[in-house]
Formats: sequence, C-alpha cells, structure tokens
Amino acid sequence: MTFSALSHLECPRCGATHDADQIIGLCPCGSPLLARYDVPVLRKEDLASRSPDLWRYHELLPVRSPENVVTLGEGMTPLLPMPRYGAELGVDRLLMKDEGLIPTGTFKARGAAVGVSRAYEVGVRKIAMPTNGNAGSAWAAYAARAGMEALIAMPVAAPEICRREVTAVGARLQLIDGLIGDAAAYIRSQPGYFDASTLKEPYRIEGKKTMGLEIAEQLGWSLPDVIVYPTGGGVGIIGIWKALNELRDLGWISGPLPRLVAVQSTGCAPIVRAWEKGLVESEPWPDANTVAFGITVPKALGDFLVLQAITETNGCAIAVDDEDILTEQHLAARLEGTFTCPEGAANFAAIRQLRESGWLHANDQVVALNTGAGLKYPETVPL
Amino acid sequence: MTFSALSHLECPRCGATHDADQIIGLCPCGSPLLARYDVPVLRKEDLASRSPDLWRYHELLPVRSPENVVTLGEGMTPLLPMPRYGAELGVDRLLMKDEGLIPTGTFKARGAAVGVSRAYEVGVRKIAMPTNGNAGSAWAAYAARAGMEALIAMPVAAPEICRREVTAVGARLQLIDGLIGDAAAYIRSQPGYFDASTLKEPYRIEGKKTMGLEIAEQLGWSLPDVIVYPTGGGVGIIGIWKALNELRDLGWISGPLPRLVAVQSTGCAPIVRAWEKGLVESEPWPDANTVAFGITVPKALGDFLVLQAITETNGCAIAVDDEDILTEQHLAARLEGTFTCPEGAANFAAIRQLRESGWLHANDQVVALNTGAGLKYPETVPL
Repeated sequence: MTFSALSHLECPRCGATHDADQIIGLCPCGSPLLARYDVPVLRKEDLASRSPDLWRYHELLPVRSPENVVTLGEGMTPLLPMPRYGAELGVDRLLMKDEGLIPTGTFKARGAAVGVSRAYEVGVRKIAMPTNGNAGSAWAAYAARAGMEALIAMPVAAPEICRREVTAVGARLQLIDGLIGDAAAYIRSQPGYFDASTLKEPYRIEGKKTMGLEIAEQLGWSLPDVIVYPTGGGVGIIGIWKALNELRDLGWISGPLPRLVAVQSTGCAPIVRAWEKGLVESEPWPDANTVAFGITVPKALGDFLVLQAITETNGCAIAVDDEDILTEQHLAARLEGTFTCPEGAANFAAIRQLRESGWLHANDQVVALNTGAGLKYPETVPL
Repeated sequence: MTFSALSHLECPRCGATHDADQIIGLCPCGSPLLARYDVPVLRKEDLASRSPDLWRYHELLPVRSPENVVTLGEGMTPLLPMPRYGAELGVDRLLMKDEGLIPTGTFKARGAAVGVSRAYEVGVRKIAMPTNGNAGSAWAAYAARAGMEALIAMPVAAPEICRREVTAVGARLQLIDGLIGDAAAYIRSQPGYFDASTLKEPYRIEGKKTMGLEIAEQLGWSLPDVIVYPTGGGVGIIGIWKALNELRDLGWISGPLPRLVAVQSTGCAPIVRAWEKGLVESEPWPDANTVAFGITVPKALGDFLVLQAITETNGCAIAVDDEDILTEQHLAARLEGTFTCPEGAANFAAIRQLRESGWLHANDQVVALNTGAGLKYPETVPL
C-alpha cells in the first residue's frame, strides 16, 4: 500500500517540474510550486472506516510515511446548516464550515500539520515564518509537536492571543513594527531556518486543500453552487480549487465546479481591484487596514492563482466594509449561536451584497468558510 | 427505527422512577435524576457510517426525535498520544482527549447540546443557569441555536471571554459578586425560567457521558487502565462512569472499568477531603480559590455519585497546587504543542504525583481529559 501518491512538484507559471523529495521553496522562476500526484488506487468507500481528521485523505497528501505525520487531531470540521441566518440573508441553503473547531482555533492548523510533517520528512529541523498571527500560532504548535525549532515574526498589531500561543509552545517570537511584509523581510534576514512563508514552501496548500475534500465528502460527493472564502494570502481558496480538480481527476465528482468567491475588506482589497480591472495579478495595496486582521495582505504571492481560480469557476471577488463585517458577525451569533472570527463574518457581508445584486440566487447552495474561532477575537464583542 | 432508547428517569438515591417525557428537575428527595434506557438494537458496526459527532450515539441519548437535535457539530474530539510528555511524567502510554476542539471551546458544549435539545423537546423555551463561565457560554450558544431565551449568572471573577460569548449570542448576562453558589441563589430568584443548573436537570450528564463512549470507540472498544478528570461539579466523571456501565450492559466492553481519578485544586478540594475521610458526600469548602476557575465548586450536588464512581472503580481523588498546574501546562505545551486549559493541566500535575507515589504504573494506559482550549485562558501564558 502506498501511503502517499505524491509524484513531483510542478510550477504553475513556467511549467517546470522538480523532484519533491528535497528541501525546496519557490520555483527558480519565482512562482510557488504545486504538488502533483499519481492517480491513487483509492475508492470513496475506503474512507468510511478512517478516522475523522484530514489524514483520512493521505493518498492525496504529500507525506510519504505515516511515522512522519505530525498531528494534533486536525480536520473534518463541521459543515453546519444555517437556516435562520440563511433566511435573513435570502439564501435558503446556507452552510458554514466551522474551522474554529481545530487545534489553535483556525484553519491555519491544516497547512501547519501537513507543512510541518512534510518539512520534517525531507529533513528540515528549524522553521521560520512571518505571520498575521494565526499561522504563526499553528506552525509554532506543530513544530513543538514535531520537536522542531521555530522562529515566528508577527506585526505588533496581530491578535494578542497569537503572541501568547507562540510563547506557550516554546517558539521564538519576534514582534515587528509594521505589516506582514516587514515581518517577511525580518525572516529573510535570519539565516539557518527553512522559510515556511505562505506559498514559499509547497505543502501548506496541501493541508488547506483538505477543506475542499471535506466539503465534497460531507455533501456526499456532490458540490455546492458557491463557496465563499475570506482571502488574504489566498492559500485556502487555491487549495480548495486544487482539491476539487483532483477529485474530478479521480472521477469522484463531476459537473461544473462551485463558483469560488474571494472576499476581502475594503481596507485591503488588492485581489478585488485586480479582478475588477481584469488583471492576471494584483498590485500592492497601500495603507492596508481592516478589523479582519488575518486578511491584511497587501500583495499575495499566489494572487495570480486566486484570480485564475475565480475566473475559471465563474466566481468573483468582492470587498466588504469593516462595519458590515461586525454587524453580520453579531447577527449570525444571535441567530445561530455561532461566534465566528471577523474574517469568517466577512463572508456573510459578501453574501448579503451578492444576493442583493442578484449574483447569488435564493436557491443557490452556498458554503461559507468560517476560518477561525471568535474566541481568538474577544474585542469584537463588547463586555 | 427508534432514534432514542430512552425509557424513564431514575433516582440514584431513593430509587424512585419518573416519566421522562415531562419538564422535570430534581427527584422530590433532592437527588439528581439519571436517564435510563432500554437495551437498543444497535451494533458497533452501525456506528462506522455515522457522522463524527456525539449524535452518532443517538440510541443512547435522550432526544426522541432527530428534528429536535440542536447541534453545532460537537463531539468526536481527538484522543492524542502524548509520547514526549508521557516519558517526562514516567507514563509510557499517556493519551489526552482534547475537548478544546468543540463549539465554545470546552467540554461544556456536550452537556449543553444534549441538555438544550432535550429541554426544547419537552417544551422548555426559556432557560437560566449559574455558571463558572464555560457552561454559561455553551448553554447560551445552544439556546441561541435553538431559538430559546437564556439567562446566565456568573461570578465577576469568571473568565472574561465567557462574558463576551454569552453577550455575543444574545443571552442575558448577570454578573455576581460572589461564587457559583451565589449565582445559583440569584437564578432561583428569577421566575419563569427552567433551571438548567448542574445536575438539576437530568440531561446535561447524558451529553457529558459521550466522552466515555468516544474513548471506548476510539480505543477500539477496549478500555484504558486509568481516566483522569478535573472535577468541579463532577458531571463529566459521573457521565463517563455511566457511559462505561451502559456499554458493559450492551456487551460492547468487558473486564474491569478504568480506575477513575477525580482531580481537584488544593484551593478547593471538597471531594478529595471526603474521599480521604471515607465519607459518602462532601462538606462545603470554605474560601474556595484556584487558578483552575472551572473547578471552583465548594459543594457539588452530585458529590456522592463522584465518590461512588471512584470507589467502585478502585480510583482515587487527589488535590494539586496551582503552581504545579501552571508548570505542567507550560511543559505539556512545549513538549507536545498542546495549549491546554488550567483544569486540563491539573490532570498532569495529578499524574506526576500518582506516578511518584506508585499509584500509577509506568505501563498503565492513562487517558487525561483536557476539558477546554487554552485559548480561553490567555493570562496563563506571559506576553
């Protein structure tokens, strides 16, 4: 039995292929690399008896040996019907996938679990990364679980809880007076660490793509009409798109893919602006600022892939105001008992706009990704 | 197909039986009531295809109709091997069940999901409860999900995040200058609400018992040697004991039950004192105070059941210092990447003591319940 069907790494920009079993970051052309797989001998039915975590899809993940799996029990988060709030938004079939129920409280745990496992497998023992907070919490936790050293650089404006999480698991924390780009510059100046920045290593996206695999499995291998995603670095939306394409190659799903919607804040909307202008990549957003701190990414390395994903699926990109984000966060909580993060609530503001404009239909089945627990954002609720 | 095999309610003190399909609190004799079931037509194999939440055990739960199930996707939390930390504690086979990965971030969600569902089913529309914080967060969230009104009273010293959670989902919050007993007195003074206090209604424990069902299923229907539990009101440990007895009645497990260990803080250890004195119930603990705020319960209504559970399983009760709790919390985080709540870390302090005294053996398989996410206790880690 082959645990992983990983074949090689491929550059989505220049088409070059690379050996996967080495320590590698970007393609020499500057693009992120994507993992490619042989079609594994795997039937849907094989999954039924596997444990409810993301490793149930191990053939479609890059870790070759089970003993290198670094896990804290991440994945198979609930896909919750939101009937009352859906009625309020005018979308009858609204579902929320709740990524708050995962180690470290956000979807970043998926990327960290697979990224750290695979980094360990190819020989990395020291990682470093810039972060808006939650990715740093997650990678620090999984590095500790693997017995690896970690250096995490985050803006001083990042959520306070993330600082504490990084410190709690014994990682080195560097606070940066600036945005995530400034944190990235600091990390580049630190020799001896493997740079695990967003999309600078090829495997974080493999962890994130399991959100797409789970949505398909949880819907009985049918697909929703629309998937709505709060987009900063964009790895989640690229990952979901990649997962659905891989499931189509396996023959497990058919028909058109869901329309993918990239949601940003009006305070930082480089991908929305590029999409509106019909560009293939984004321009850096000046003076980025939003209450949804996790999506404060002025220029994402994978922006061209996000734009490709939404274009090819007939999706769209849309920006929402901070005020609307907080209004929808509170409304969802009162109607459904769900305390989401502001990034997750940004989806709801987008759904309201898209329904009002007619882009969304009343009977569309819509999946919104709540990327993290509201618990990590206490200040979004008054005392 | 019968969704629930619920038969009736039974008093564990006076033996009286009561109709389950009515709104009911305590037995007239003053004791909590326990739900009793017919032996359902259910095979272990039937569970394999069910979704990974606590409702997979619906035959053994009290909700009669699936449409009354109020769920946020709770249950089937990971059971994590802790090899590095286990070696440090001298327990080779240490497992931690991580109840941080559940709606509202603590195991209280289990009791709330089942308690609210069943309350709704028998006709309750307004609930009230005193709480040390986390139960209030959970019951408020599930009440909102059910469209029910909730009144939550908690000590001013309860974790701040819990206040915000209660407010976020639109419940009424009353802060109390005192301990949980004072909050209970306030609740009793509020007419028109169903009193959902710990063990004053019969179904919270049914939700909590699913921890025991899951541990058995996750270990392939074998049992660990020891289960260690941080004990305040004690519903979790009573629930696990009840679950294991029910599984034995079903014929799904055999042999001796795990030794159950009730862990308390030296700042509030009424059950430990009663156990050491050989009493059948506890005496109120004066001036209760501990960093593990969730277990600050000076006198638990179900104390006699906790004492019976640990006695009948050859378990024990043990008190640990606040300083040791925080030391073990930090050590577990650094060695395994797990950021536990202080109540969960109290288990680890107990395990170290019990191993040093020889009560635990090096090759005992030990399951420790981490009852909540460290995220809810940011102040336990320095900035």
